[in-house]
Amino acid sequence: MQETARAFVPGHITGFFTVERDEDPTKTGSTGAGISLTNGVSVEVSYAEGPKITLNGEDVSMEAVERVLGTLAVSAAVEAETSLPVGAGFGVSGAVALGTALAANELFGRSLSENELVTIAHGAEVQAGTGLGDVVSQARGGMPIRLEAGSPHSGVMDGIPARGRIEYVTFGELSTSEIIGGNTERLEQPGEEALSEVVRSPTPDQFMYASRYFAREAGLLTEDVMRTIQDVSEAGGEAAMAMLGQTVFALGTGLSDAGYDPAVCAIDPAGARLESE
Amino acid sequence: MQETARAFVPGHITGFFTVERDEDPTKTGSTGAGISLTNGVSVEVSYAEGPKITLNGEDVSMEAVERVLGTLAVSAAVEAETSLPVGAGFGVSGAVALGTALAANELFGRSLSENELVTIAHGAEVQAGTGLGDVVSQARGGMPIRLEAGSPHSGVMDGIPARGRIEYVTFGELSTSEIIGGNTERLEQPGEEALSEVVRSPTPDQFMYASRYFAREAGLLTEDVMRTIQDVSEAGGEAAMAMLGQTVFALGTGLSDAGYDPAVCAIDPAGARLESE
Repeated sequence: MQETARAFVPGHITGFFTVERDEDPTKTGSTGAGISLTNGVSVEVSYAEGPKITLNGEDVSMEAVERVLGTLAVSAAVEAETSLPVGAGFGVSGAVALGTALAANELFGRSLSENELVTIAHGAEVQAGTGLGDVVSQARGGMPIRLEAGSPHSGVMDGIPARGRIEYVTFGELSTSEIIGGNTERLEQPGEEALSEVVRSPTPDQFMYASRYFAREAGLLTEDVMRTIQDVSEAGGEAAMAMLGQTVFALGTGLSDAGYDPAVCAIDPAGARLESE
Repeated sequence: MQETARAFVPGHITGFFTVERDEDPTKTGSTGAGISLTNGVSVEVSYAEGPKITLNGEDVSMEAVERVLGTLAVSAAVEAETSLPVGAGFGVSGAVALGTALAANELFGRSLSENELVTIAHGAEVQAGTGLGDVVSQARGGMPIRLEAGSPHSGVMDGIPARGRIEYVTFGELSTSEIIGGNTERLEQPGEEALSEVVRSPTPDQFMYASRYFAREAGLLTEDVMRTIQDVSEAGGEAAMAMLGQTVFALGTGLSDAGYDPAVCAIDPAGARLESE
């Protein structure tokens, strides 16, 4: 008998977004665009009196993951491993929730489709207040554009065709739940404007430009982030701020060229997937 | 200046389908389900007085590819390389069309989105009469279910969560255009029945069962194919027929276990993608 199942879920950086609320958590979400990263989260699910969740070996409490296990009606241990910083805009909570859904479905033979599993993880993440657009983007891979918010049944997605290296540095956390749980009106106009720029010209450079515009207009830039983006720009590169974290990401060698010592990965083309035994 | 751009597109085996026609070729297509394969087609596009298309080094004429180049208004050479058999149900024509769309968009800076490029390649394939569902499936990757036919703007897709090894053997060609261009009514009832079985229980085993049911009920089995599927079944494995080719594919080591000498690959989780320079 199979004793564990594993899934890999890419990290995801959002460049800009708008918040779209609905009574139904699976229809709640965000429009916007981002980048799926080859640095992600490996999730292993095994039989256990549960829920018991560890992140990089330490016991953690993750409401979205507990909700996924509850929806699938399984008792399990979830072990997540990642090199991504937590709370810094890489969608780690969404990744653990989605990886848990994929792996638990496999291990417990729940026979659900990919759209159903994404919907469960997205709804759990929304209800936990820890994210709005990461799960659907992580499921898709690439550079996803969220044209209409929500799970696959209501959401509409497209993508920017792109490959290549991504660099990032992190200066600390920002509370996602504080920002998306509070008054999000000031994000609306810049978020819509940024999205329409990217829809008009879906290229990586335009995405970076729209993301910088959004962070500036929405008043989310911190001093460290602002200085770093400027340094990259002065070195001839393209950088922007990850929503929501004190994180700067750059295309290609943008941060290295500006003298930083960034983490290095690439655009992940595949999206969330089961891993072979 | 960039002188070439490259894309990789997975092969795609359809297990069962129904034909859905519309006056608009981008809304024409097929419902059904299939498997994207790590064995696929590498496509390189370069500047040239064109169109000039080669497949594994030989000059070929491919209407779908010429239509893609025409829609993008580019003059280019397309070099495609693949280990997949041509005309045997692996979606090679769709793969070259989609790879050409992705790579030409990159090389010529056309700034189109992924959905737009998939729509162009899908429409070209439909107009050429060489395929109905391969392009959208190859764009998605994994084990795609086509719930509603057509390009991303009208089609609806889901997926069977699965990873692992796929084996195949080929006994020869079947003419896609003859079968999908002719009377497709006899495919309708078995195609719809197979789809509803897989939607009810989206697992790899159920997909193989539904595919065998479809091939049998639609009267498409040839003697070689029938015997091979039976051999795999007697050895305890799961095999079915690729639509449309005299090809048998199996999950895991199904064909090897039955004493065949199959080609071996795996489910491709990523779908069509640009390759880095």
